[in-house]
Amino acid sequence: TVEHIFKEIFKSALKLQETDHKKELLVSRKQKKEDTIVTINGETVGQGSPTFVFGPCAVESYEQTALVAEAISHKGLKLMRGGAYKPRTSPYDFQGLGLEGLKILKEVGAKYGLGVVSEIVTPAHLDEALDYIDVIQIGARNMQNFELLKAAGETKKPVLLKRGLAATIDEFINAAEYIISKGNDQIILCERGIRTYEKATRNTLDISAVPILKQETHLPVLVDVTHSTGRRDLLLPCAKAAIAIGADGVMAEVHPDPAVALSDSQQQMSIPQFDEFYNQMQQFMKNYQIEK
Amino acid sequence: TVEHIFKEIFKSALKLQETDHKKELLVSRKQKKEDTIVTINGETVGQGSPTFVFGPCAVESYEQTALVAEAISHKGLKLMRGGAYKPRTSPYDFQGLGLEGLKILKEVGAKYGLGVVSEIVTPAHLDEALDYIDVIQIGARNMQNFELLKAAGETKKPVLLKRGLAATIDEFINAAEYIISKGNDQIILCERGIRTYEKATRNTLDISAVPILKQETHLPVLVDVTHSTGRRDLLLPCAKAAIAIGADGVMAEVHPDPAVALSDSQQQMSIPQFDEFYNQMQQFMKNYQIEK
Amino acid sequence: TVEHIFKEIFKSALKLQETDHKKELLVSRKQKKEDTIVTINGETVGQGSPTFVFGPCAVESYEQTALVAEAISHKGLKLMRGGAYKPRTSPYDFQGLGLEGLKILKEVGAKYGLGVVSEIVTPAHLDEALDYIDVIQIGARNMQNFELLKAAGETKKPVLLKRGLAATIDEFINAAEYIISKGNDQIILCERGIRTYEKATRNTLDISAVPILKQETHLPVLVDVTHSTGRRDLLLPCAKAAIAIGADGVMAEVHPDPAVALSDSQQQMSIPQFDEFYNQMQQFMKNYQIEK
Amino acid sequence: TVEHIFKEIFKSALKLQETDHKKELLVSRKQKKEDTIVTINGETVGQGSPTFVFGPCAVESYEQTALVAEAISHKGLKLMRGGAYKPRTSPYDFQGLGLEGLKILKEVGAKYGLGVVSEIVTPAHLDEALDYIDVIQIGARNMQNFELLKAAGETKKPVLLKRGLAATIDEFINAAEYIISKGNDQIILCERGIRTYEKATRNTLDISAVPILKQETHLPVLVDVTHSTGRRDLLLPCAKAAIAIGADGVMAEVHPDPAVALSDSQQQMSIPQFDEFYNQMQQFMKNYQIEK
Repeated sequence: TVEHIFKEIFKSALKLQETDHKKELLVSRKQKKEDTIVTINGETVGQGSPTFVFGPCAVESYEQTALVAEAISHKGLKLMRGGAYKPRTSPYDFQGLGLEGLKILKEVGAKYGLGVVSEIVTPAHLDEALDYIDVIQIGARNMQNFELLKAAGETKKPVLLKRGLAATIDEFINAAEYIISKGNDQIILCERGIRTYEKATRNTLDISAVPILKQETHLPVLVDVTHSTGRRDLLLPCAKAAIAIGADGVMAEVHPDPAVALSDSQQQMSIPQFDEFYNQMQQFMKNYQIEK
Repeated sequence: TVEHIFKEIFKSALKLQETDHKKELLVSRKQKKEDTIVTINGETVGQGSPTFVFGPCAVESYEQTALVAEAISHKGLKLMRGGAYKPRTSPYDFQGLGLEGLKILKEVGAKYGLGVVSEIVTPAHLDEALDYIDVIQIGARNMQNFELLKAAGETKKPVLLKRGLAATIDEFINAAEYIISKGNDQIILCERGIRTYEKATRNTLDISAVPILKQETHLPVLVDVTHSTGRRDLLLPCAKAAIAIGADGVMAEVHPDPAVALSDSQQQMSIPQFDEFYNQMQQFMKNYQIEK
Repeated sequence: TVEHIFKEIFKSALKLQETDHKKELLVSRKQKKEDTIVTINGETVGQGSPTFVFGPCAVESYEQTALVAEAISHKGLKLMRGGAYKPRTSPYDFQGLGLEGLKILKEVGAKYGLGVVSEIVTPAHLDEALDYIDVIQIGARNMQNFELLKAAGETKKPVLLKRGLAATIDEFINAAEYIISKGNDQIILCERGIRTYEKATRNTLDISAVPILKQETHLPVLVDVTHSTGRRDLLLPCAKAAIAIGADGVMAEVHPDPAVALSDSQQQMSIPQFDEFYNQMQQFMKNYQIEK
Repeated sequence: TVEHIFKEIFKSALKLQETDHKKELLVSRKQKKEDTIVTINGETVGQGSPTFVFGPCAVESYEQTALVAEAISHKGLKLMRGGAYKPRTSPYDFQGLGLEGLKILKEVGAKYGLGVVSEIVTPAHLDEALDYIDVIQIGARNMQNFELLKAAGETKKPVLLKRGLAATIDEFINAAEYIISKGNDQIILCERGIRTYEKATRNTLDISAVPILKQETHLPVLVDVTHSTGRRDLLLPCAKAAIAIGADGVMAEVHPDPAVALSDSQQQMSIPQFDEFYNQMQQFMKNYQIEK
């Protein structure tokens, strides 16, 4: 009927407006064609050569952190991750060392020349944390903690934003928009696996999210191979896939003694495993003619 | 092999410890056999007779809120919901009236004799909010905002905790444990649908979560029929299913003019629809010999 | 731009055609307003009073089947389910008694006055099976086994079609259309849970699928509480929810000795559990003023 | 308690048996360490150098098929896919040319020197199909059509088995076991995306399934980049990721005129797009030092 057709035309008009609205996102490629490059401690994330972010799941002690930092630094890498505020399913699990952990990170980072990435879980921690960290990580559980996104957007520090466990790519992009809308465009996106029915892996690495995010936004995109798989044996193949598909880098967890780690003991690499992993990645990238 | 068997025995021992640990949760039925009853404005949530929580998605104005409150109050109900701080996917969507919205809620609640439930999204808002609301709602996106859970646990106000979009029942129970571990046992759980592949509904109402939560914990359990379905035509059948399966009550959104609502316009009931919904529920409960 | 608007208008027109196409489905309410009633052995499925289909997961022996049939028959019920061809994940699991099982079902059904429902897994089995069964069940794994759907559509036997493990409601409706398009309109739909990330239940019962299927189609809709939950303790509450939300009946598995069952031993009811389940359901339906 | 500990030890023993059972699968690496190599028309699938399987979604005519075959053959490739029996959601969608389609495939294959892969959807079609095709494809919807798996296992033709839309990796491996248990070990596994909540892609490519399947079984593993993504713009990046992670090859759909294709028009490559795709893959593989 004619009425029906008019109704649909009206709906299309609404849809068009919605599409136009989408175009206007500040993180969108339509707003800015060139890749955003985020510089941290001399590392230029998003400039072509892959970035690697290694480190322990949680900062447990100076010694533990320093051992990992030393291994990272020996490879000529410039960034380290480590959790001080740990979001844990149970209130009775190890919750991280908090500010003490940030202090260790800063001290170790300074000693080994590494920029440090650490997760912040609530706006109230942000101010004090800014003195100790080089990158504010916003974790999967907090991807839609909008007050935290806005607070991070009001700082001048780079933000590493992880995709939520069940976030659509559209929601992920909008979460980044919360940060940039407050003035901070130093944002790195990180695909870290989504929750599906499959139980062979901790999460399901949504590898095709990488080229979609690169198309839709101008932001660098990393892949966290540890949390997406939850399996040490899958870190290397997934890291290769990430680089091959066009990710700007890879994150993975390293611990001097995974068996006694206070969190994520099943999935962290030991230092010899880390050496082997990185050698293999270098060989892969050399073949693939990527310089690091 | 013998070695293998010993390994497995060791694993079992670990598993046993884990199970024992689970038993120790303060929200667990194993810790407390009797149902927890949460009393708000004279309404006893969890005492057998179903509780209904209606109200607009967002507080938009005094008039809009008052119209809904009047309709609720005419039915002899004692609680109203209304969002002041709205977590929205896009930073450019209506974000709620904030403190102004809470003030409206309080004023309207006082006039119509209703206890008010409103979502708090970050610990920093909590202090000022406590003067205005009767129940702290923690929304799906913040179910694992652990700092917020802890902050709510340190108050003496009842907390309505919604299940996360992709939270397992086990994670949901542990989120409640974060609250109770800080001393606040006035917790109401709310199933509000989970994210699945099905697109006919906004989310998939996980109805069997209700009897599981009732078995595993001593807390009252509500079902939010609005967010789980996202469809006005499913509110009534899902509310009946919720009561039949043993939920302690139902939440649903009501707006004086859904077509112009600033959020969730597709799924809120108008006041005549609300009247019809409630009449049908009363008939259902009367048949089913439940008093309200 | 104008070009863009025309493009969208064209898209709308396509969408309209698609919607019109949808209207034309033979299973649709739009094609036939009145409820389809499927009569089996005197039981009128879809006529208002709930239908119950109980029976063992698999027919294992005459004795086992007869014990269950006796219990069903004592309750005045008229239908029994039992698997003869069992689709099993592993080729080394018990695969059912095949034709032998169908013969047992028929003999037991005749003795106790029960119509029998049994799953057929491939068109080649259909001809011989028609002599033994009253309802052709098409299982979840075969919901899109289109040759089987078409073959069942060419018979005159009622078909009980289960929703696929990850089928959308739209795909489910289209699977029923395959049957009806071949001339057989004696179709009963069965929601049996969908695959999600949640592990507390074997599948997630998508309870809101029931009112959607009742709205969209004119076919009767059952709920299989056994396969949707995989937990004996959830059978009763889920059966209540199914009836309350408007399902035309409930399916559940009963075995004389679940602990030694050759399949699904965790989720079948023993006969005393079955008696208790049915008593409680009768009480529930009496309250709810449903006659059986 | 001691009783509890014994119960758990007993459970462990059961679990051990289960694990041992798993070891015994004929498709398992534990049964056979060396990679299975499947030879089709001179192409050795699984021998290190990637295999490519291109072709139209559906065989629509001799001309359409021949145009694609010519393009494939020009690249020196040896295999072509094409659907003759099409499993479609709606009974009113194009269902394929059936036997006529197989005849076209054979004729075209012979002319251009290509081995042909085509989906068989029911055991009854198998006998006649064997004269026309070189590889029996079993599609996602039929991954647990066990009678079809058994029938394919009784032939001597290679079988390309696709993962079900919501199949776990464990179920996928067991489906392959159905085939091998009947004597046919010429099996190629194909990851083709799983159903998740994400809507940006048709399915979610579970890339980490590739290394898991390579570890757990001795069978070659392909990745279908067309069905996993449903987006032409993601074919190339996903194909690179597939090769990088260790897949034995890639499948993708090519049609002379995708806009008028009778199925999958949104996702097939045109012939110039196919040329570009293959050039880029060759460049990628050359860098990566893979010969083709």
